[in-house]
Amino acid sequence: MLIKLKNKSATAVLAIQNYVKEKGCDTRVFEGDTFDAIVVCGTDREHKVNAADITSLAESDIDKIMTTGYLLSSRAFKQEDTTFKVGDVTFGSDELVMMAGPCAIETYEQLDAVAKELSKCGVKVLRGGAFKPRTSPYSFQGLGVEGLKIARKVCDKYNMLFISELTDLRFLDAYQEYVDIIQTGARNSQNFELLKALGAIDTPVLFKKGFADSIDNFLCAADYIYSGGNKRVILCERGVMGLNQNHYRHNLDINSLLALKHLSHLPVCIDPSHACGRRDFIEPMCLAATALGVSSVLIEVHDNPPLSLCDAKQAFSLSYFKHLQKSLSVFTTATKSVGKD
Amino acid sequence: MLIKLKNKSATAVLAIQNYVKEKGCDTRVFEGDTFDAIVVCGTDREHKVNAADITSLAESDIDKIMTTGYLLSSRAFKQEDTTFKVGDVTFGSDELVMMAGPCAIETYEQLDAVAKELSKCGVKVLRGGAFKPRTSPYSFQGLGVEGLKIARKVCDKYNMLFISELTDLRFLDAYQEYVDIIQTGARNSQNFELLKALGAIDTPVLFKKGFADSIDNFLCAADYIYSGGNKRVILCERGVMGLNQNHYRHNLDINSLLALKHLSHLPVCIDPSHACGRRDFIEPMCLAATALGVSSVLIEVHDNPPLSLCDAKQAFSLSYFKHLQKSLSVFTTATKSVGKD
Amino acid sequence: MLIKLKNKSATAVLAIQNYVKEKGCDTRVFEGDTFDAIVVCGTDREHKVNAADITSLAESDIDKIMTTGYLLSSRAFKQEDTTFKVGDVTFGSDELVMMAGPCAIETYEQLDAVAKELSKCGVKVLRGGAFKPRTSPYSFQGLGVEGLKIARKVCDKYNMLFISELTDLRFLDAYQEYVDIIQTGARNSQNFELLKALGAIDTPVLFKKGFADSIDNFLCAADYIYSGGNKRVILCERGVMGLNQNHYRHNLDINSLLALKHLSHLPVCIDPSHACGRRDFIEPMCLAATALGVSSVLIEVHDNPPLSLCDAKQAFSLSYFKHLQKSLSVFTTATKSVGKD
Amino acid sequence: MLIKLKNKSATAVLAIQNYVKEKGCDTRVFEGDTFDAIVVCGTDREHKVNAADITSLAESDIDKIMTTGYLLSSRAFKQEDTTFKVGDVTFGSDELVMMAGPCAIETYEQLDAVAKELSKCGVKVLRGGAFKPRTSPYSFQGLGVEGLKIARKVCDKYNMLFISELTDLRFLDAYQEYVDIIQTGARNSQNFELLKALGAIDTPVLFKKGFADSIDNFLCAADYIYSGGNKRVILCERGVMGLNQNHYRHNLDINSLLALKHLSHLPVCIDPSHACGRRDFIEPMCLAATALGVSSVLIEVHDNPPLSLCDAKQAFSLSYFKHLQKSLSVFTTATKSVGKD
Repeated sequence: MLIKLKNKSATAVLAIQNYVKEKGCDTRVFEGDTFDAIVVCGTDREHKVNAADITSLAESDIDKIMTTGYLLSSRAFKQEDTTFKVGDVTFGSDELVMMAGPCAIETYEQLDAVAKELSKCGVKVLRGGAFKPRTSPYSFQGLGVEGLKIARKVCDKYNMLFISELTDLRFLDAYQEYVDIIQTGARNSQNFELLKALGAIDTPVLFKKGFADSIDNFLCAADYIYSGGNKRVILCERGVMGLNQNHYRHNLDINSLLALKHLSHLPVCIDPSHACGRRDFIEPMCLAATALGVSSVLIEVHDNPPLSLCDAKQAFSLSYFKHLQKSLSVFTTATKSVGKD
Repeated sequence: MLIKLKNKSATAVLAIQNYVKEKGCDTRVFEGDTFDAIVVCGTDREHKVNAADITSLAESDIDKIMTTGYLLSSRAFKQEDTTFKVGDVTFGSDELVMMAGPCAIETYEQLDAVAKELSKCGVKVLRGGAFKPRTSPYSFQGLGVEGLKIARKVCDKYNMLFISELTDLRFLDAYQEYVDIIQTGARNSQNFELLKALGAIDTPVLFKKGFADSIDNFLCAADYIYSGGNKRVILCERGVMGLNQNHYRHNLDINSLLALKHLSHLPVCIDPSHACGRRDFIEPMCLAATALGVSSVLIEVHDNPPLSLCDAKQAFSLSYFKHLQKSLSVFTTATKSVGKD
Repeated sequence: MLIKLKNKSATAVLAIQNYVKEKGCDTRVFEGDTFDAIVVCGTDREHKVNAADITSLAESDIDKIMTTGYLLSSRAFKQEDTTFKVGDVTFGSDELVMMAGPCAIETYEQLDAVAKELSKCGVKVLRGGAFKPRTSPYSFQGLGVEGLKIARKVCDKYNMLFISELTDLRFLDAYQEYVDIIQTGARNSQNFELLKALGAIDTPVLFKKGFADSIDNFLCAADYIYSGGNKRVILCERGVMGLNQNHYRHNLDINSLLALKHLSHLPVCIDPSHACGRRDFIEPMCLAATALGVSSVLIEVHDNPPLSLCDAKQAFSLSYFKHLQKSLSVFTTATKSVGKD
Repeated sequence: MLIKLKNKSATAVLAIQNYVKEKGCDTRVFEGDTFDAIVVCGTDREHKVNAADITSLAESDIDKIMTTGYLLSSRAFKQEDTTFKVGDVTFGSDELVMMAGPCAIETYEQLDAVAKELSKCGVKVLRGGAFKPRTSPYSFQGLGVEGLKIARKVCDKYNMLFISELTDLRFLDAYQEYVDIIQTGARNSQNFELLKALGAIDTPVLFKKGFADSIDNFLCAADYIYSGGNKRVILCERGVMGLNQNHYRHNLDINSLLALKHLSHLPVCIDPSHACGRRDFIEPMCLAATALGVSSVLIEVHDNPPLSLCDAKQAFSLSYFKHLQKSLSVFTTATKSVGKD
């Protein structure tokens, strides 16, 4: 249950908090731009917390009591773009954040080689998968926690942040220990238990949209994280199902990217590597997304793409990555100049 | 890695098992109709188990070494329909298994009232959700483990089996204690960690296809369960995304049902309640699926549908459920007579 | 423009007709179950016919003036099922109408051979394509008008009705001369000029839903035909785009079939041959659709399926067709007995 | 039937031409970069032209005889980008061609007002619909031929080219008289009779992809035009069906745009106005498409958008259009500078 007030009212908030506490549950208060919102937390199995009671407590202050839909991730709640820092990297500003690295962490040597070069290019966030969700059970499944440890060591060496996909809550402790930004995958975009748990921790979350998620469902799911108290959420577009899988894997959907920027205050990111699954699509997709004002990109880079243990067709070489950085800087300049007009 | 032999060969199996054991991993052997298959288990982080080595051990016996795709859930592996018993209920035979009950377990009284009547109708499997995956975080999320306990008590009273959806592995122990058949939801159809864990236990699994899963991806995912050693898997169709969500929620896809029966030896089930989200579609969908030879159906029944805490629009009343049973018996008879022609 | 009255009112109809005539346009009046509707016909380029004027003429009788959406094909307009005769065949009743024949008319001999056998089986409507819409320009495109002439001769010989797809209005005269029921293809489901022209003639129309049409768009398009004055329209489901084109061509969507029966008074038909593109799916699809109360089916039958010039994979042999007829009669009996309960 | 040679061979071409002529049909020869192709024209109802015969005539020169798929619109046939002039406007070069104007031609005054301003901005192609394909038969259907005449007069006054959508072949003569570029709509993308007729004339064609067309089907359909002898075809992306129609109409699919540029030598265009149906999406979509190297755009501009008779929500005002031109020139410069790197 979420109670949306019409405006900011400390009195109404307090009255509701007291009532909820009496019933044995707890509250979390969210301050919006022009109104406050209160989420009821804790399990209320006997339905002691009652909408009618709450309404009677503060009728003139309550706008609505929500049991469906989303609010906290929307511009209705917060007009201005959310920006936040992870280490010294800022998400949501107009400086494009590049996150790059191999699809899967394979060995210390491999990751070190990639990180060393990326670090020289100014990349501050290293990506690398430790638990790989693969369509077939017989494909390589990742190095697991061992992979996380390798990446931590490498990131510490080059002073980089580490981002990696969490696939199951049994590994959450390890992620909190080794990872700076937790990524969730397209297949877990509606895994609400996972999202609730990520809402209860401090680690920032890069939250990927599923192949077949509507924007409304995606923002409802973002509210699962945000309403738990974790406000550092990055919305990531990584493609929707399309009609041309013989030519490219998914459609990177810049329409939904625009709509997300319009509907939500949270920073947006793209993952063109996984979306398209084709190396030659990645640069143009990055340029296009830059034109739309995306604030971060996630790129697969491998020291030796043809030998990549997974998704070899989409990985960039290091030299191509350098070329991409140059092109992107031309376009971010162009975008800024258009915006200022 | 899965090694598919050309035929049945104890010698080849043994040679491969020995090799894999030496390398510190384990194997699981599956006996197909005309050939054996060996799955390599355990983590092989240093890639000691090597396809080339295995090939050299038994070249003439090995058909292929798979690192993509599916095999064990296919008719290629096992020609005949799989049937199995849970308690005294048989899945996969030509006797239709009815599984019915409320969307969510709400109170002991509610579940008892439904179960009592269903039991009188001859229904032997009671469904009821304890952890409800809801689009919005502000919707009712289910009673959790407490709900499972209620259901266990009710099922024991009426000598029924209990089927319920598992949404996260942290609850697996409770499910193994209280639940007879574990159901996975459409949103978790590609949650491979969950599927791997279900492959490692004995409880039968009703495995629902996702809204946007291709049949091939769905069978790959079924192999995640089966290759872990749990062979009691029921494939469940519960609708695909469509163009008419203003009229009905999803399309119950009888085409994929037919294709699943053609491609896989595993029993198939439909969940028309969740697929269509509309009470008046459920009977015709059940009749249609019967014509196709579906072997079980999952139906939402509530003692007082308008008061249902979730999905009120799709729940059957008990009296309507009795009507459905009559219609279905007419159609199962018709289907058998056609089949015998 | 369509004017929907609140009830039946000859006075209001007359007032509106007079007004429209004065402005140089014409009207067509449709009598619904509980209200009348008036369509303004003719080109009104100078916008002389004005909603405000019409409202002032009969304000108390007018429910709404529509410039979007559909009405005439809906149950709102006409509660009872529409049934109509073509020759001595009745569409829309609970007697299933079988329409069968080859995908393409190839030669007189081929069509005669098929028609002779189908006629013996009691089939009264022969299908056969003369203009074939083919994905590639290099594929066989049909015999054209010559094919229509062949079919007319054959149908006259065996006293059958002839149904064939019209692909362009330049051939309309020939269709009116040789064809008893004009079929429109999935690719022309939103070809509004074609539909308008079919609304202006007397020949009944089998109107196929497109691969990606929503039900609402499909019924809007049906209103294009109906509002022109041609009320003998059969709605035909022939599959929607799906995720499993490697296994079957399209999804025959029985959900939309049910919804069409619910929303519209017009008879519904299925074309499982083109929907699935797979011979072995056709019988189960027909049985399933029968359970849903479909009133006609369109089946491809060829005297020698492997030699068929198009869509060889989906054509039935004559002997298999006889088997299908038997199965269907079992299911139509079952469906009737369920309905009567 | 299309015969693809392995290389350029006048001898083989001649032999095949002679053979086909003898059989009473005709040929059209297409010279590719490295090989020739021959299309058999005319109706060959008695199947006199035979693949086996042709093979025997020039076995060593023939690569394949195609009866499915596409060839002429592909890069396999012609490696280099196709560019062509219409009047003094060049399509397919790296100068972006802007085509702008109202959704529907409403009056002479309206069109003159828009054209006057657009002409001042340097726009050389005026768009405007005369026959409007509308979802509902009760919506405004356009001024018809009268609209074409208005537009011709206006275009002649301002020395502009006129582009307009042809919806039916009965109007083809009028289009050839009044229109400089014929546009086909998304709903007619698989209307093969229309495409064949457009292949037989000289007027250039802007060919829009359908909402649910795969790229392969779209290029097959382009071959319908090209193989008829009309080589001035522009491929236009105008959106695919998506999951967010409550937020925007269709997804402008830049992935398919990239793939089209990769697979085909024909110029590509976007229509962001119809794709998204939302004014605020149009500028970012244009910028993004520029980054991908699109060579023309089609924009709806109205002198008074809120009064537009159709699609009012997507029309640009004239002042906003001028802003768009500035932004686009920044991005075309950026794109060129990236390309040269």
